[in-house]
Amino acid sequence: MSARYPAHRFTVTARDPATRARTGVIETPHGRIETPAFILCATRGALKAATMQEARAIGASIVLGNTYHLMLAPGPERIARAGGFARWTGWGGPTLTDSGGFQIFSMGHGGVAAEIKGNRSSTPAPTLVRIEEAGATFRSYLDGSIRELSPETSLAFQAAIGADLVVVLDECTPFHADRDYVERALARTFRWSRRSLAAFDAAEGRGSAGPQALIGIAGGHVHEDLRRVAAEFVNGEDFFGHAIGDSLGGTRAEMHAIVAFQAPLLRPDRPIHLLGIGQIADIWHGVAQGIDSFDCVHPTRIARHGGALVRPGTEETGGRDHLNLRNARFRDDQRPIEEGCDCPACASGLSRAYLHHLLRVDELAGLLLVTRHNIRFMVRLMAEVRAAIAAGRVRETAAAWGVTLG
Amino acid sequence: MSARYPAHRFTVTARDPATRARTGVIETPHGRIETPAFILCATRGALKAATMQEARAIGASIVLGNTYHLMLAPGPERIARAGGFARWTGWGGPTLTDSGGFQIFSMGHGGVAAEIKGNRSSTPAPTLVRIEEAGATFRSYLDGSIRELSPETSLAFQAAIGADLVVVLDECTPFHADRDYVERALARTFRWSRRSLAAFDAAEGRGSAGPQALIGIAGGHVHEDLRRVAAEFVNGEDFFGHAIGDSLGGTRAEMHAIVAFQAPLLRPDRPIHLLGIGQIADIWHGVAQGIDSFDCVHPTRIARHGGALVRPGTEETGGRDHLNLRNARFRDDQRPIEEGCDCPACASGLSRAYLHHLLRVDELAGLLLVTRHNIRFMVRLMAEVRAAIAAGRVRETAAAWGVTLG
Repeated sequence: MSARYPAHRFTVTARDPATRARTGVIETPHGRIETPAFILCATRGALKAATMQEARAIGASIVLGNTYHLMLAPGPERIARAGGFARWTGWGGPTLTDSGGFQIFSMGHGGVAAEIKGNRSSTPAPTLVRIEEAGATFRSYLDGSIRELSPETSLAFQAAIGADLVVVLDECTPFHADRDYVERALARTFRWSRRSLAAFDAAEGRGSAGPQALIGIAGGHVHEDLRRVAAEFVNGEDFFGHAIGDSLGGTRAEMHAIVAFQAPLLRPDRPIHLLGIGQIADIWHGVAQGIDSFDCVHPTRIARHGGALVRPGTEETGGRDHLNLRNARFRDDQRPIEEGCDCPACASGLSRAYLHHLLRVDELAGLLLVTRHNIRFMVRLMAEVRAAIAAGRVRETAAAWGVTLG
Repeated sequence: MSARYPAHRFTVTARDPATRARTGVIETPHGRIETPAFILCATRGALKAATMQEARAIGASIVLGNTYHLMLAPGPERIARAGGFARWTGWGGPTLTDSGGFQIFSMGHGGVAAEIKGNRSSTPAPTLVRIEEAGATFRSYLDGSIRELSPETSLAFQAAIGADLVVVLDECTPFHADRDYVERALARTFRWSRRSLAAFDAAEGRGSAGPQALIGIAGGHVHEDLRRVAAEFVNGEDFFGHAIGDSLGGTRAEMHAIVAFQAPLLRPDRPIHLLGIGQIADIWHGVAQGIDSFDCVHPTRIARHGGALVRPGTEETGGRDHLNLRNARFRDDQRPIEEGCDCPACASGLSRAYLHHLLRVDELAGLLLVTRHNIRFMVRLMAEVRAAIAAGRVRETAAAWGVTLG
């Protein structure tokens, strides 16, 4: 526990003997998060097609807001006046905000990182105007106005938004960046990280809803030596936790390799977040490398297209992690999405056929029900992950989920 | 209690001394409905932007499916195979289906009845091809195919859908119809009603989810003598209940006058439904004339446009029954939609400013929250209506709602 973060604590509670997986608890001013945890994306202050109350009721433990979106609408001051993110949204529990860097730098560049991170969205990408030592200048996706974001203003915005966990601004590099560019961006990220710590201290680490804790980002693109340097940098600074960020390569396999390389280099006494990743196989791979939390729009995004999460690897899914309930083969399928699932849709006995019908005639209720299934699915998955770690059976349990850990 | 309807019963429990208002209970195989009741529209098998479970949890007592929509998708047989409407949708409680006539005849004609009834929807209107003694031929809004609906097939579809309360097919006339046309349509509706009773008996009054009860429609357009003839007709046939239908005029005042004229002519021992009407003032006017139930898409439809129901007549609403939360004046309004409301949005302390933000950035959660407020608002309104009747204070309570009863 650092003097900088008196209101936050991370405790490791169990370890899997055969992998680097561990369970833990992150304590925050708004409550406890059992790790490994999945963080639901509430980009603009709301989950896609579910209310915060529902997500809470079905076991979600932490949500994430995006500083980039919230700085543009409704503006951080409005969230501060409402008592901060957790109160403004009615969520009430632990929250995290990112720095805004990913949207501005990676999406602004038009890089393919968004593809791998599953962060494609209907939000038009911002246009990056320029990056200078002071900060970045970009064009708002909402009204085209010119806006600026610096390490200091990102933290000021995040203080106003008032999440429990806040993240430093990094210069996130696109996948197609050359090594020279990545090196320079990484050096700038180090300088920005130190400025972030200074700005955090100047504000006494307080946000609109109480004390905050600062997370440092470990980047380095696909280059192992740079990933090592980045890990050593964040280990040496007084962050509460770390996040593995920057471009994670061009394929899922490359992403898994980067995580497997960098996560073990990060200090074990701090929680490690993996930014923007959260498909089922990725979670098992990440957990096995010691990742403590994940965030991803995948569960709520696929719901919009009728995708309902199920245990992968069965014949039925064709190797995917979800069923596409819009498919005509579900028209007369009287089974629930998943036998034994206790989500509001499955527990009410609603059939795939009914959900198929709602999705086909564009009834929003279809989206609502699939979204809740997917949220509950992730909650159950993470509970199973934690139980597997506590039982020392991560490798076996992952295999039962169709995931072979290397 | 009729021998035709052994599983259904309507009991009047209290009367207001100064009006024709009454409270009652409708017992059905799927549960009890306290009247006066508001029936939520689940046109295609789902409420707009709320799940059945949510509507149930906040007190809704009965939902309505539209035979026209359900016969086209997913098809009545699919609903029958799933155990009927209440089970298929997860609603579980009492249900009603209309006959499909309103959509085919009134909307098919392009009449303005839809305007008064608040039934405008994003569903393209069907095209009426022809009306013959046997039944009607129309073009499906889904695929343009030619479809038929007769008194017998409407009841067969409704039997498969399996609601507790089913409605005869009537020839619903558009507002611009001349008297001669209305007279001929009314005579046909009488013949069709007798055919409906015969078809109901031939099927032994059983739907896919148990015994059903048949509701006869009293039409007559704006003509008092025809409204009287229609009332006498349904009074003389063995229906479980009655519905006031057909064109209800060109203005709200005309509609109130038609209801005030016809409702008192209907037998008092049967429940009276007012088809397609349900704005707040209309409910007070209808209740005072003895109407026992209402249905209307208004509460869920306005939610889609950011309209949150509030007690009307205040300065704030400008005489309307709702606040348009998309309006910029709510941008910094920290109050809940309504002080003292116990809906999931208001009870969670969510502000108009937050809902305004969600609606402006097109987050579905805004729609979900306003929809729930509106459903809960209608549940509370109807509870207040029933309490006013039981206390013999309908006129006074309506006045407190800004409604002057004649």
